[in-house]
Amino acid sequence: MLDLNKDNITQVVLERFANTPDPRLKEIMSSLIQHLHGFARDVKLTEQEWAQAIDFLTRVGHITDDKRQEFILLSDTLGLSMLTVAINNDKPEGCTESTVFGPFYVSNAPEYALGDDVANGANGTPCFVKGSVKGLDGEPVAGASIEVWQSDDDGSYDVQKPHLDSMQGRGVLHTDSEGNYYFRSIVAVPYPIPDDGPVGQMLNLTNNHPWRPAHLHFMIKADGYETLVTHVFRRDSRYLDSDVVFGVRKSLVVDWVEQADGTYLLEYDFVLNPSNS
Amino acid sequence: MLDLNKDNITQVVLERFANTPDPRLKEIMSSLIQHLHGFARDVKLTEQEWAQAIDFLTRVGHITDDKRQEFILLSDTLGLSMLTVAINNDKPEGCTESTVFGPFYVSNAPEYALGDDVANGANGTPCFVKGSVKGLDGEPVAGASIEVWQSDDDGSYDVQKPHLDSMQGRGVLHTDSEGNYYFRSIVAVPYPIPDDGPVGQMLNLTNNHPWRPAHLHFMIKADGYETLVTHVFRRDSRYLDSDVVFGVRKSLVVDWVEQADGTYLLEYDFVLNPSNS
Ligand SMILES: [Cu+2]
Ligand SMILES: [Fe+3]
Ligand SMILES: [Fe+3]
Repeated sequence: MLDLNKDNITQVVLERFANTPDPRLKEIMSSLIQHLHGFARDVKLTEQEWAQAIDFLTRVGHITDDKRQEFILLSDTLGLSMLTVAINNDKPEGCTESTVFGPFYVSNAPEYALGDDVANGANGTPCFVKGSVKGLDGEPVAGASIEVWQSDDDGSYDVQKPHLDSMQGRGVLHTDSEGNYYFRSIVAVPYPIPDDGPVGQMLNLTNNHPWRPAHLHFMIKADGYETLVTHVFRRDSRYLDSDVVFGVRKSLVVDWVEQADGTYLLEYDFVLNPSNS
Repeated sequence: MLDLNKDNITQVVLERFANTPDPRLKEIMSSLIQHLHGFARDVKLTEQEWAQAIDFLTRVGHITDDKRQEFILLSDTLGLSMLTVAINNDKPEGCTESTVFGPFYVSNAPEYALGDDVANGANGTPCFVKGSVKGLDGEPVAGASIEVWQSDDDGSYDVQKPHLDSMQGRGVLHTDSEGNYYFRSIVAVPYPIPDDGPVGQMLNLTNNHPWRPAHLHFMIKADGYETLVTHVFRRDSRYLDSDVVFGVRKSLVVDWVEQADGTYLLEYDFVLNPSNS
């Protein structure tokens, strides 16, 4: 029986996971163990800090429910989410870039017809959104499913408002036969990610603000194309260069154009990556 | 504004945490970010695997409560707990070695007089435990606080038995004027760590058993000495060489000696490390 110390323990733990049947899981566990141990050895993690980490993760887990995903916030604020997006979205030139999914997506959002008002009562300045969905070689994508979600004027998503009995600022539309889409909603504004939990505490202790620049989320699905998860950012928004979740990409920053009547117009044309490319 | 990709994002995230006021927190966050990103890049973590990790951590958090600490189990089974112990317990030769704390410690356990039965009704073969607590230079440590905790005959700790209204197999004693201790309890047996949660699922998928060799936990505190957190392992116990939490150390493996009357005797002399050493 070998006495374990800080230098030989990693090897012993790796051996313990060496007969993991699934090769991909084995690869992930081995890398995870090496980096996890590497981190603890690097900083000479103390037992008190280890206990604080256990407590922190427990609190992240306990504040998480179906309307609040603190682990996604943790991943987002440590740049892991954007890194994962970057690793997996090396798309050909010309495709619309992806960005982080974020914690406010809700499945089975209401279906809307083109031209409907997706805000559905959420406060904000009216805004008309339109554009097209095309494939990489320019062909229009008819019947593509477009899911959109956004916060209201005071920076809250519907899931953050307990008293609401219907979804707001969230819906599913489909492109017409020419691959075009259009709907009404409200102007996107910057919002703080929830900072009343452990992640907010971490941001505070590290001198980081919890704000995201103004953006409108899109998830676009169509047969024969990779699903696109992205958002469109407002050009003159605050925090464009300090997004707390590192999600901004130049190609996704556009103008919300004010119209004579004080409402706004946002136009964005999406280009999807064929799925077998 | 710089477009982030998998190669430059780590630097950008590190810069975001560069003005963390507390130098130790900054050091930890920087190392954490580099190893976390290193892991994701190494394995080219997919978005689906990222989502599975978020779900896994969420389930670890949700199953955790004041009687079940799944994050400690996760740390234990990945060898992080033992690594942290090893990093922080480079004690002088002759001191009793430390080992993992484990998830079954409960504060404000009942006080017992020397010679009392700490099992307090827990099933098991009676066992008399005795020994001494001394400092590194051999002087007896009078009035040292000794906390002990162990599972019963079918491998459960009191906290794992909801119907119990009093603590069992758990108590606090103090050494006498000569630094000796003695109490009655039951023979320690191997037990499986709880494997009905995400950590059990991980052990299953990696072909690992959830068992710990038989052991009796000790936490010994005395003024002028470092707190000792350790356990004593039963020499002929199953799983001594495959402890699921990597906690076994040769110096902590001893005989539970069967007596003529069928009960057992365990003797262990502890040596504490002076706290200013
Ligand atoms: Cu690493
Ligand atoms: Fe958002
Ligand atoms: Fe134990």
